[in-house]
Amino acid sequence: MERLRIELGTRSYPIFIGAGLLDDATLLGAAIVARDVLVVSNEVVAPLYLARLEQGLAGKRVASVILPDGEQHKTLATVEQVLDALVERRLNRDACVVALGGGVVGDMAGFAAACYQRGVDYVQVPTTLLAQVDSSVGGKTGVNHPGGKNLIGAFHQPRAVVSDIGTLGTLPPRELRAGLAEVIKIGLVADASLFAWIEGNLDALLGLDTAALTHAIRRSCEIKAAIVAEDEHEHGRRALLNLGHTFGHAIETAAGYGAWLHGEAVGAGMLMAADLSARLGWLGSGDVDRVRSLLQRAGLPVAAPRIGAARGLELMGMDKKVLAGRIRLVLLRRLGEGVVAGDYPAEALQATLVGHFGVAA
Amino acid sequence: MERLRIELGTRSYPIFIGAGLLDDATLLGAAIVARDVLVVSNEVVAPLYLARLEQGLAGKRVASVILPDGEQHKTLATVEQVLDALVERRLNRDACVVALGGGVVGDMAGFAAACYQRGVDYVQVPTTLLAQVDSSVGGKTGVNHPGGKNLIGAFHQPRAVVSDIGTLGTLPPRELRAGLAEVIKIGLVADASLFAWIEGNLDALLGLDTAALTHAIRRSCEIKAAIVAEDEHEHGRRALLNLGHTFGHAIETAAGYGAWLHGEAVGAGMLMAADLSARLGWLGSGDVDRVRSLLQRAGLPVAAPRIGAARGLELMGMDKKVLAGRIRLVLLRRLGEGVVAGDYPAEALQATLVGHFGVAA
Repeated sequence: MERLRIELGTRSYPIFIGAGLLDDATLLGAAIVARDVLVVSNEVVAPLYLARLEQGLAGKRVASVILPDGEQHKTLATVEQVLDALVERRLNRDACVVALGGGVVGDMAGFAAACYQRGVDYVQVPTTLLAQVDSSVGGKTGVNHPGGKNLIGAFHQPRAVVSDIGTLGTLPPRELRAGLAEVIKIGLVADASLFAWIEGNLDALLGLDTAALTHAIRRSCEIKAAIVAEDEHEHGRRALLNLGHTFGHAIETAAGYGAWLHGEAVGAGMLMAADLSARLGWLGSGDVDRVRSLLQRAGLPVAAPRIGAARGLELMGMDKKVLAGRIRLVLLRRLGEGVVAGDYPAEALQATLVGHFGVAA
Repeated sequence: MERLRIELGTRSYPIFIGAGLLDDATLLGAAIVARDVLVVSNEVVAPLYLARLEQGLAGKRVASVILPDGEQHKTLATVEQVLDALVERRLNRDACVVALGGGVVGDMAGFAAACYQRGVDYVQVPTTLLAQVDSSVGGKTGVNHPGGKNLIGAFHQPRAVVSDIGTLGTLPPRELRAGLAEVIKIGLVADASLFAWIEGNLDALLGLDTAALTHAIRRSCEIKAAIVAEDEHEHGRRALLNLGHTFGHAIETAAGYGAWLHGEAVGAGMLMAADLSARLGWLGSGDVDRVRSLLQRAGLPVAAPRIGAARGLELMGMDKKVLAGRIRLVLLRRLGEGVVAGDYPAEALQATLVGHFGVAA
């Protein structure tokens, strides 16, 4: 088992990574101090892992709430189900919410924990690669609004993250690949050597090799943690982690929540960001080819839907990263170095949009 | 105009108190830096003051959303109306939500601001005495749940508070009295001289004397601010401000949200806390008489509804101030000194409950 600490002052917390952690009572007892626990999971993950987790929590008062599966259910109405369960069980401020599932479950359980009695503890037990490398680190919680993704939420740090890579054995291959997109993203914006390492170890990762997965998760969390520690509330450097997200959000919104996996949309979005970066002369065409090739080898879609440049731009406009009406984008100075830029020529963005989204819907 | 500063590090903010501040463009321009403003008000306050406020905000892009009036509408569904308005107008992270109204409007506007894009600025323009002395200071935001009051919310500090005491001229007398209950509360838990000052100046306050109101609001905010600065997230001393609230919440919930005004319920609850404090030997019967007499002179109800001790206790149990199943209450060591106590004899609490709620419903 590997152990990592996210340094955030009084809100610091540990991340545990390894195989078979899910029902490790000693570990769970250390990670979850509360006596009252509400486990939040979904209808796909709960049948696989809830009983094991509950066994690991023996001795505590454990209740659970099972949510419907899928990004399309990441709504305030679903979070209300969690809040209702907390109220119904009369849980107090010293209770702990445990998120057992992927990023959607984690975002909603975390948001419910943030709002219940103005904030109770929560612990993440992520069961997807995406959640293990990305959404379980950093304290972003929230839900979608019909008008845009993640528009409603809170910053609320977990008390601990328990990443059992054994759970990846039941993950649909498509979701594994979507998770890899986030690992690739972290390499692209912050660590060229991680990007190169993925190029060299992609088959081991896709084959669920324990050592390779542990390394990828650990490095991703380390890099992300360093960025988050520097900029918890995303006023600066943390925005780099949104590489591909502004383009990706447009893709997800246009396609309807749930049609594209988040990681898939981010993957295609990263390629658009690389394309725009090349138009600015920051990347060579060989660099863009490396990005495209790695995404393709990982089995990720590289062709954005042909929604048209105008609609794409409109959907990008309703994004959190817009400041004073100007679309700021995360671009790449080179592979391994992201930069937030708002001063690119509008024509370059337009060319990228037309190239990937097409001229009209 | 008086100016007060709430010291909370990077989240410090000013409170302005005076007559005619509502449309003071210079003041508003200093308090609200954002160019995009969403004013949140309700159907009673908006016809009285929205146009004046908008005039004071001339030069900004101002939109507004008008909520239904009353505590019974302090729900997640109503907050969603505010969130919808923010999304619809495509407002960004640098927008500002302005709450124009009483505590209910402020709590919901503040909660919407806390949740929109994981937190945007908000400014309070409280138009009730209650909101001016209490809910506009301290950053508590949120809504009720059918299972209990204020169970869903966030800590989110405003950027500024603009308290125009001119707005109290249109406040229904019943609401003015409910606001005075909060001023009395602050005196009871933290400042015996404020309590005595209210005893001596009650007629001036009820007669809307400007100097008396300004003094009462300023002192209340100063005392509350000092407590909040010490304990922003209510892990300790801030809980003193909940004097009367646990009893009061039971009263409000039993009567149905909206039947009792919050301040009225807190007033009756304070008398119950004083009664219990006397049973513990901390207050003399003369002290309890002073509390009852001042509440009565202020026109506040002192008789709790006869819901029965058992039902009262049950309703008190589902309160945020319960730790590990034990009901902790704010009691009075003496007039002007509150204390959080969980170690009182159950029989003493039972006697207070029977005395005020009766034996059975």
